[in-house]
Amino acid sequence: MNIKEDIIQSHQRISPYIHRTPVFTSQLIDEIAGATLFFKCENFQKMGAFKMRGATNAILQLSDTQKQQGVVTHSSGNFAQALALAAKKLNIRAYIVMPEDAPEVKKKAVEGYGGIITQCKPTLEARQRTAADIQQKKGATFIHPFNDFNVILGNASAGKELLEDCPELDAIIVPVGGGGLISGIALSALAFGNNCKAIGAEPSNVDDAYRSLESGSIQQNTTTDTIADGLKTSLGDITFNIINNHVEKIITVSEEEIVEAMRLIWERMKIIVEPSSAVALAAVLKSKDTFKHKKIGLILSGGNVDLRNLPFH
Amino acid sequence: MNIKEDIIQSHQRISPYIHRTPVFTSQLIDEIAGATLFFKCENFQKMGAFKMRGATNAILQLSDTQKQQGVVTHSSGNFAQALALAAKKLNIRAYIVMPEDAPEVKKKAVEGYGGIITQCKPTLEARQRTAADIQQKKGATFIHPFNDFNVILGNASAGKELLEDCPELDAIIVPVGGGGLISGIALSALAFGNNCKAIGAEPSNVDDAYRSLESGSIQQNTTTDTIADGLKTSLGDITFNIINNHVEKIITVSEEEIVEAMRLIWERMKIIVEPSSAVALAAVLKSKDTFKHKKIGLILSGGNVDLRNLPFH
Repeated sequence: MNIKEDIIQSHQRISPYIHRTPVFTSQLIDEIAGATLFFKCENFQKMGAFKMRGATNAILQLSDTQKQQGVVTHSSGNFAQALALAAKKLNIRAYIVMPEDAPEVKKKAVEGYGGIITQCKPTLEARQRTAADIQQKKGATFIHPFNDFNVILGNASAGKELLEDCPELDAIIVPVGGGGLISGIALSALAFGNNCKAIGAEPSNVDDAYRSLESGSIQQNTTTDTIADGLKTSLGDITFNIINNHVEKIITVSEEEIVEAMRLIWERMKIIVEPSSAVALAAVLKSKDTFKHKKIGLILSGGNVDLRNLPFH
Repeated sequence: MNIKEDIIQSHQRISPYIHRTPVFTSQLIDEIAGATLFFKCENFQKMGAFKMRGATNAILQLSDTQKQQGVVTHSSGNFAQALALAAKKLNIRAYIVMPEDAPEVKKKAVEGYGGIITQCKPTLEARQRTAADIQQKKGATFIHPFNDFNVILGNASAGKELLEDCPELDAIIVPVGGGGLISGIALSALAFGNNCKAIGAEPSNVDDAYRSLESGSIQQNTTTDTIADGLKTSLGDITFNIINNHVEKIITVSEEEIVEAMRLIWERMKIIVEPSSAVALAAVLKSKDTFKHKKIGLILSGGNVDLRNLPFH
């Protein structure tokens, strides 16, 4: 297996269906950070998050027979929308299992992208069983939101693009939830970087990945009490394995630090990012000594927020 | 006088001090509008608004003696910050006259850019007298926020850049306050467009420019009750003259239409624009028949908002 070639092929495969997102800089935030920062704006990606990359790549790898029978996933977040939209663009059916207590706005978004929603009880067990049912009855292929090598390879394209635009990055900082994004970025850093490190950023309140790296085995979160709602998930075996081997370290940040970083990005860069994206900047600002005078890439993972419910007071 | 050559020279003069802002597009908003829209993102301009262009051009036209004695203006809005920042970058003093009831956040921003604030009573008469005092005592040169040909020529560079990126625009829609931006854009459309019209967009609640064009003489606003706080000013003689001769028409929009357009831009484009910017999109959405299937430029004039006080409910 040649990872570099796999990423190049995945990128070519999905290019007609995704945006090549811009890289933004901010003199003011550089001054605050004491480093030179390059923000990869996946908040401008189609449907507003990097998830579009992995979802598209996974679907495009299916056989024609599989495509005819559709895909299924369980997610209440950006991956649900991403799979629905990617499927719609490729004219195939997407069955989305969502917990019945998912916010109405998220259900509407999935429906807006043509996803076929099945509601279930809000437990992991119910989600898995419902998805398995659909697999069996419809013959649909299950696509995991992050613990899937094709999803990871799709996500890796964001790192490849960033390193094409900024070849001399010392490190790329990536928010960590289930680990699908940082796994892709870590592989890209290896393949296309010049000694470029992949570093994770995680809310202290859901620091399962930090503890997993420390202990050498997958740890679970005991609470999900964070504003960074994209990062509540624990790692899977595939993502843990990649992170354990290729991620330098994981920096944890407080809720206050996340909101402060989010405010900086909104006020200074005039772009809308979701709290999960701000976790990456929060990590840089928390570890100024580590990053002093370095060239640092940050993945702004998404920009889907509820404008009626913002954390600025 | 050769306007085209003047705009080219102004653009060259200010280029080292401003950003060349990107042009954004949105498939989703195009579908809603039934037209192809090109958003010139002056919300990403230095200090967050197009005003940086005009302020910089006006200062750069001063003699060395004038520069030594500084500049003065009266403004509580983006021009105060723009003149302060432009002056700071050129190492000259900027005296900013602000009404004592101006929001603390705006005073802090001007101070942050090194402006020297003099407070006065919140009347136009007090502002003018205080500025005249400073002119006399300090020898500072007064620079009007919009009714100044060098300011207008600086603003024109935004239109030149937009038409360089999108040469075949049928029209450019511009928010109208004092008329400094639309005057510059109208001159650029004449100089660099291919039969490209300049069209104004104005809140119905402060429709002085609309009434001025209708009546053929400068009209004042009787209220300033609009969320688009950059557009409350009435025209000056220079801007009225240019608008009267070169602006096709002015479209007025309601407060609800402004907020709805602002929400669309925030939610779909993931960028932060102030209400004044959203007025341009509101005008396009209000006049779909006029713009059907056309290529339309819109100037997103600025992105300075108070995140604690947003109109989304």
